[in-house]
Amino acid sequence: MKPQPTTTNEVEQWGIFEWSMQGTMEGNPYTDISLTAHFSKGYRKQDITGFYDGNGTYKIRFMPDDLGEWTFHTSSNDTALNGLKGSFTCIPATSGNHGPVRVSGNYHFVYADGSPYAPFGTTCYGWASSGDELAEQTLKVLSEAPFNKVRMTVLDQKEGRKQILPFAGSFEEGFDFRTFNPDFFHHFEQRIVQLGELGIEADLILFHPYNKKNGLTRLMNANDDDFYLKYVLARFSAFRNVWWSVANEYDLVLSKDTNDWERLINIVSEYDPYRHLCSIHNSQVIFDHRHPGLTHMSIQCQSYDKWNRLTESIPDWREQYRKPVILDECGYEGHASRFWGSVSPQEFVRRCWHGIVMGGYVGHGEAHSTGKGVWTGNGVNLIGDSPERIAFLRHVIENAPAQRLEPQTLGRHIPCVGKPKQYYLAYLGINQPKDLEILLPTNGSYQIEVIDTWEMTITPIDGTFSGHCRFPLPAKPYMAFQITLVP
Amino acid sequence: MKPQPTTTNEVEQWGIFEWSMQGTMEGNPYTDISLTAHFSKGYRKQDITGFYDGNGTYKIRFMPDDLGEWTFHTSSNDTALNGLKGSFTCIPATSGNHGPVRVSGNYHFVYADGSPYAPFGTTCYGWASSGDELAEQTLKVLSEAPFNKVRMTVLDQKEGRKQILPFAGSFEEGFDFRTFNPDFFHHFEQRIVQLGELGIEADLILFHPYNKKNGLTRLMNANDDDFYLKYVLARFSAFRNVWWSVANEYDLVLSKDTNDWERLINIVSEYDPYRHLCSIHNSQVIFDHRHPGLTHMSIQCQSYDKWNRLTESIPDWREQYRKPVILDECGYEGHASRFWGSVSPQEFVRRCWHGIVMGGYVGHGEAHSTGKGVWTGNGVNLIGDSPERIAFLRHVIENAPAQRLEPQTLGRHIPCVGKPKQYYLAYLGINQPKDLEILLPTNGSYQIEVIDTWEMTITPIDGTFSGHCRFPLPAKPYMAFQITLVP
Repeated sequence: MKPQPTTTNEVEQWGIFEWSMQGTMEGNPYTDISLTAHFSKGYRKQDITGFYDGNGTYKIRFMPDDLGEWTFHTSSNDTALNGLKGSFTCIPATSGNHGPVRVSGNYHFVYADGSPYAPFGTTCYGWASSGDELAEQTLKVLSEAPFNKVRMTVLDQKEGRKQILPFAGSFEEGFDFRTFNPDFFHHFEQRIVQLGELGIEADLILFHPYNKKNGLTRLMNANDDDFYLKYVLARFSAFRNVWWSVANEYDLVLSKDTNDWERLINIVSEYDPYRHLCSIHNSQVIFDHRHPGLTHMSIQCQSYDKWNRLTESIPDWREQYRKPVILDECGYEGHASRFWGSVSPQEFVRRCWHGIVMGGYVGHGEAHSTGKGVWTGNGVNLIGDSPERIAFLRHVIENAPAQRLEPQTLGRHIPCVGKPKQYYLAYLGINQPKDLEILLPTNGSYQIEVIDTWEMTITPIDGTFSGHCRFPLPAKPYMAFQITLVP
Repeated sequence: MKPQPTTTNEVEQWGIFEWSMQGTMEGNPYTDISLTAHFSKGYRKQDITGFYDGNGTYKIRFMPDDLGEWTFHTSSNDTALNGLKGSFTCIPATSGNHGPVRVSGNYHFVYADGSPYAPFGTTCYGWASSGDELAEQTLKVLSEAPFNKVRMTVLDQKEGRKQILPFAGSFEEGFDFRTFNPDFFHHFEQRIVQLGELGIEADLILFHPYNKKNGLTRLMNANDDDFYLKYVLARFSAFRNVWWSVANEYDLVLSKDTNDWERLINIVSEYDPYRHLCSIHNSQVIFDHRHPGLTHMSIQCQSYDKWNRLTESIPDWREQYRKPVILDECGYEGHASRFWGSVSPQEFVRRCWHGIVMGGYVGHGEAHSTGKGVWTGNGVNLIGDSPERIAFLRHVIENAPAQRLEPQTLGRHIPCVGKPKQYYLAYLGINQPKDLEILLPTNGSYQIEVIDTWEMTITPIDGTFSGHCRFPLPAKPYMAFQITLVP
């Protein structure tokens, strides 16, 4: 009888049951050894692919979504790893663990436990590969920032930089793309966990077009891509706060075509047992989001000549694809030479609010030079005027008496979302009316509050309103207002 | 032999040769009497339709465009008006008379004498029908304002207001649409002349959808429309500063369809001997501007949900119709309840500049309440912050070393117009870069001047530039810059 490894007896719902075992170190375990754990709980069955973690250690990671006792047994071509059995008990999630984020109501999101989740993301491409000192500083900033999602690259290594590499080898001597460096993954996984502890989703960019001349991606071929992707999926899928961004600016990766991207999306769909949220981010050409593996849109401006249009196109994309729309790049606050990085905070905050009232979501980015690069490059310092306003917007959304707000009609040309006969949130952007006429339902009395999105104030208007009504506004740009049924 | 009326012997080029004569007062001269003058000068022939001006007076107005002696004779079914002959000498235009404005270079305009004309228009619909006191005040404001075109309605009369009516009759007792009131036209023509004296084009709105319940237009049928239009053309065409706007918001006139509008445009083409500029202004649906009678586009925002898009669509419209694009309504500065009238001056001025660098033109409007209505309704007072910035923009355009500026490429995503290898004008809108990289031609050295479109300053950058170059900018929104070849 084989020795049975000790299992953790209790794992919380959407926590990680991780099971380590020793197997062969001969040959190349990454390519030679297959390992699957077959989990079951009553009629529920789930196969989980294991992975080699170096030094003869093999691991299975499983994120249970159902309370009670789970049992499993293993299959492997390594006899030391084959036929092993075990069990654990899935116990209720602890406070702060809401499970992974799912799509809800076609155009919105929700945590697996039903808690509301509206994405207020930011982009820090390389923060997890910037070294421990800078990464810890980034985490500190994130702990005080309003963001609940971070877009970040897995492969951010390039020649001539001190860093932990994901593959065996080096830029100088070449890489072995069939041999991973477990140390890289241990570090990276720590960052995913730390984000999770801050309540932040890790939107992992799996491929990207950057560092064309001195980066890893230029060296990998299609087989390398698939091998890397499956390993990443086996390691990272059990983290509840992971999202997949198959690529950033996929259309700038000249070595891949639509068939390649569809193949990679299909691998994600097939090898992620939990079907985490999955997107592919464009530069100029929006991917065909009818692909069933894509759970939502992760869009950026297609033409900077027409940047104003981005949030205005949200209704069209909703209509076209019937999926949530996140404008993960909507320009960055800053003074950079390039148009994408020279957006004023007023305009950036306008885009955030306008995105919401168009029925979508807008992600943050910052291109201010801080002496440690720029936030969107590798994190570290956040100095712009947008984040506190995004915190305010998030406060408004999360404290609204309704979630998953859908477009509503209050009157002509008033961008508005809400829940009918209960709550309305409208945003007037650069318009500066001194008053407004609207048509409210007559199911009761409504309170109107004027929201100054720049000064971050919420001011109730005297009285209550119903039916056709007119109310005063401060005749300033960047005003919103919310209307709530009086209980 | 018939008595020959005395003619004015000398008329300046693009001035008016007006010839009065007495004819029958019996019956209805407006409908019964036809009168044409056949002008000729060498091989040039021009038939001009006369009109009845009341009290037995008939008039011929002719705007000569060619220097030298013109002769004419008349044809009429009134023997008193038939077979009359005369002549006059066309002398050179006096200073300030540049003739009518024409299309030039597909997308631009020029005066008939070749002087540059770039439209910086405003809208004062009813100023000419607002009574002498208010109209004189409007003229005073216009004399100090930056506008060189005014959109104004001919039929601005409505029930319950003291006014001079264009037709015989009254709202109370009904109108005779076959009998005009010469007094109305004398007044109106005086306003056209006064605008001309200020160097302002009179963009005459011939039909509009307003005052549906208490206005003249609701009472007129298609035959009335045609009769009125031909009379207006006979009277007004000889004024060199007239433009025809066949309708304002034509698509809101529910009693007319596309065939009606095409018929009316065709009447303008046929009965205006000088082919003044002619447009038709939309509300939601842009007219098919392939119609040869339309010389340019006079556009407004099609959807206020997407107001940002208006100037950005200029390149598409240029491409589609190959005609000049004027955004005659691009929102109005003000604090009105409606979105079209609550645009901040910063945003309005942005639209004006952005329109220019997209290869079009933007017209002004103001919806601030002044105690005498709003400027765009009937003129009188102009209190916004846009006009002085429009004056500054006009100053920049008119002092540029090139005219009829066409889209140019200086670098990625930099909206720019200019004349290749000579002059470039770029505008950065809400972007606030601290510096910029551009690619200049290498035919010589260029001077770069930074233009603060809001503060209205022009600041040269030290040194000269050529080829690939980088230059500093103030890291503020609303900056433009111009680049001029050093002679």
